[in-house]
Amino acid sequence: MEVEVLQERLAKALSIVSRVAASTKAGLPILSNVLLRAEGKQLTLTATNLELATVEYVNAKIKKEGTITVPARLLADFVSNLPKEEIKIITSGEKLTISAGKYKSVINGILADDFPELPTMDEKEAVSFKIPADIFKESVNQVIIASSNDMTRPALTGVYFNTFEGALYIAATDGYRLADKKFVDNVKSEIKVIVPTPALREVLSSLSDSVEDVEVMIIDSQIRFRLGEVEITSKIIDASFPDYRQLIPKNCKASVKLNKAELTRMTKVAALFARESGGSVVCEASKENGSFGVSAVASELGENSATMEAKVSEDGKVTLNSRYLLDSLNAISDDEIEFSFSGKLSPVVIKNTDNADYTHIIMPLKS
Amino acid sequence: MEVEVLQERLAKALSIVSRVAASTKAGLPILSNVLLRAEGKQLTLTATNLELATVEYVNAKIKKEGTITVPARLLADFVSNLPKEEIKIITSGEKLTISAGKYKSVINGILADDFPELPTMDEKEAVSFKIPADIFKESVNQVIIASSNDMTRPALTGVYFNTFEGALYIAATDGYRLADKKFVDNVKSEIKVIVPTPALREVLSSLSDSVEDVEVMIIDSQIRFRLGEVEITSKIIDASFPDYRQLIPKNCKASVKLNKAELTRMTKVAALFARESGGSVVCEASKENGSFGVSAVASELGENSATMEAKVSEDGKVTLNSRYLLDSLNAISDDEIEFSFSGKLSPVVIKNTDNADYTHIIMPLKS
Repeated sequence: MEVEVLQERLAKALSIVSRVAASTKAGLPILSNVLLRAEGKQLTLTATNLELATVEYVNAKIKKEGTITVPARLLADFVSNLPKEEIKIITSGEKLTISAGKYKSVINGILADDFPELPTMDEKEAVSFKIPADIFKESVNQVIIASSNDMTRPALTGVYFNTFEGALYIAATDGYRLADKKFVDNVKSEIKVIVPTPALREVLSSLSDSVEDVEVMIIDSQIRFRLGEVEITSKIIDASFPDYRQLIPKNCKASVKLNKAELTRMTKVAALFARESGGSVVCEASKENGSFGVSAVASELGENSATMEAKVSEDGKVTLNSRYLLDSLNAISDDEIEFSFSGKLSPVVIKNTDNADYTHIIMPLKS
Repeated sequence: MEVEVLQERLAKALSIVSRVAASTKAGLPILSNVLLRAEGKQLTLTATNLELATVEYVNAKIKKEGTITVPARLLADFVSNLPKEEIKIITSGEKLTISAGKYKSVINGILADDFPELPTMDEKEAVSFKIPADIFKESVNQVIIASSNDMTRPALTGVYFNTFEGALYIAATDGYRLADKKFVDNVKSEIKVIVPTPALREVLSSLSDSVEDVEVMIIDSQIRFRLGEVEITSKIIDASFPDYRQLIPKNCKASVKLNKAELTRMTKVAALFARESGGSVVCEASKENGSFGVSAVASELGENSATMEAKVSEDGKVTLNSRYLLDSLNAISDDEIEFSFSGKLSPVVIKNTDNADYTHIIMPLKS
C-alpha cells in the first residue's frame, strides 16, 4: 500500500473508527486494530467490536493498493498530533511506515487476512428511509434515556423501531419508565426491529455538523446508518419488545401545565433531601391553592418543599424517582410541559404542550 | 440567628468553603459541616479539614446574631439551585430554616460548640507580603507540579518558601525533578517554610477574577493567605527541605534554544510509542546536522522519530521521562525555551529564554 492523505481528513476519520475499536470486549487483539484498505480513489477505515462495525471512506491519492491492520488508538493519537500537512503511508508486510514533514513512525501491525469478515448487506433489498440529522439526533436522545442496561432482558436494552398507522415510532423502556416518539410520518413498509442502544449512541457520536441526513437501511437481522462518509452497521436484537402502547394511559384524571425550568429547579432541590429515600420526591397538586409542589420526604438531613402556581382541575399526589423526572424534563425542548396523573399508583404522563409527538411515562413509587 | 443575604453571594461563598469540608479525611462528621456565624454586619462561613481552614466573610443583614453548623455540601447544593433572590436564614436549636420565594427547607445541623476551634493568628506579629494575584497564580502553578505525593517524605509534599540574597523563592522537588521560581524581589525578613501543596491548590481554586492581590502572612507554624473576602490558613510542614540550590547545575556543556510548541508536539508523539518503557524518550542534539530530535525507544508497538532544526554547540544525548518533560514545557509561558544538558547522567535544565526567574530540572533516566 502507498497512500497520500491530508492530516485533517485522516485524523477525523480515525477519531470515529478508533472509538469502536476501543469498545471491544472480546479478547481478540485484532479487534483493537483498524483495518486500512487502499483501493480506487479511497482509503477505507474499518473497525468492529463484533456487535457493530464502523466504516469510513476518506479521499486519498492511492499510489499502490493494499490492506493492513494497525492498533487504532496508537494510529489515531499519532495522526492527531501531526502538523496539518500531507501524510504518507507505506506498508511493507506487517509494518506500516507513516511520515509527515520531519515526523516518521513505523507501526507494527497485523495482516488484514486475520481481520473478522464483516457481514455484507444488499442495500437494494433493504427497507430504507432518510431523516434530517437534527431530527434524528433530538428524537433518539429523547428515547434512549428510557432504555435499560439489564442484559437479562435483551429486548429492553435497545430502541424499538416500529410502524403504527403508517408512521414510524421509536420507543424504549426499562420497566420503570417509557419514552415514545413519532420518528417518520410516512413509511410504507412495516418495520418492527429493536436496535441496540450502543449502536445508536455510536451514530449520535459520529454525527458531525456537516452531515445533513441520516440514511437508515434495514434488512434481515441488520441495520445500517449512513451519515456522510461514515457507515455504521449493527446487529438487531433478536427478542420481542413488549406491546408498549397498551401501557400508555389513554385518559388521565388530571393534567397540569407547568413551566419546565421551574419544575426542574424544584425537583433538583427536593432531590438533595431525598438521598436516603433513593431519590424519591412527592409531587402534589392542589385545586384549592392553585398550586403544584415538589417535596422530599422528611429525612435525617431535614425537609424541603417548594410550590409553584398552577391551574389544577383535580387534587392529586404521586411519588416519583426524581432522577427519572429530571431525565424526562431534560428530554423536552419546550418551555412548558403537561404533567398528567390519575392516582397514587397510575403512571404519570409527561408531554410537550405544543405537539403530541413525544410521550414520556414514569411509574410511581409506593409511598 | 436571623439573617438576610443575597443568593449569589451566599452561593459563591459556599462553593469555596464546601470544597474544604468535602476534603476532610478524619472521621468526624462535624468536619463536613460549615460553621455559620452571624455577627455585626457579616455572616462568616468556616470549614476545616484540620490541616487547613477556609473562612469567608459575606455582607448580610444580621437581624439576630448566632451560630450553627450544617452539612456543607447539602447547603451549597441547595443555595446554588435557588432563584437569584434574597435568602432568609433562621435557626432554632440544631435546625436551620432557609427560605427564598416559594422554596423552603429545614436542615438538621449540629451546635457550633462541637466545631473544632481554629488556631488564632496574631497578624500584626506575622511576617507578611503581598503579591499580584496573576503572578501568584502563574508562579505557584509552575512550581507545584514538581512536588511529591509521597507521605513518607513530608518535606517534599510541599512548596518551599525561602529567602535568598534578599528575594523570596518558591521551590518544589519530588526527587526526580525540581522547579524553582523567584517569587518576590524584595523581602526584608528571612523566610524558610514548607507550605503543604493542598493548601496552595486550595488558594489557586479560590482565586476569583475579582481578586487583585494575595496577602501572605507567616507566623510560628502557620501560614495565612488572604484573597478578597476569603482567608485560607494552613499548618506549615515541620521538616527540613533539602539544600536544593546545590542541585542546580551552574554550567552545562551544551544548551539549545528550541520552539516550545514544536518540542511539545515531538515529545507527545514519541510518548505514544514509549508506553512499554514507562514513557522514556531519548532527546538527541547533533552539531553536524544542526538538529534536535526526540525519539521513542524501539518497542513492540513500533518506533518513532522526529527532528527539528536547532543551533547545537555540542553533541549530546539524554533519556528523559516524557511526562516530566511535558510538565516542564507546560509550565513555561514563553514561545521559546532553553534546553541545557551535560551528559547522559547529569540533570537537564529547562528555562525560559526571556528571563531567568524560573528554572526546571529533570534527572535523566538510565538508558
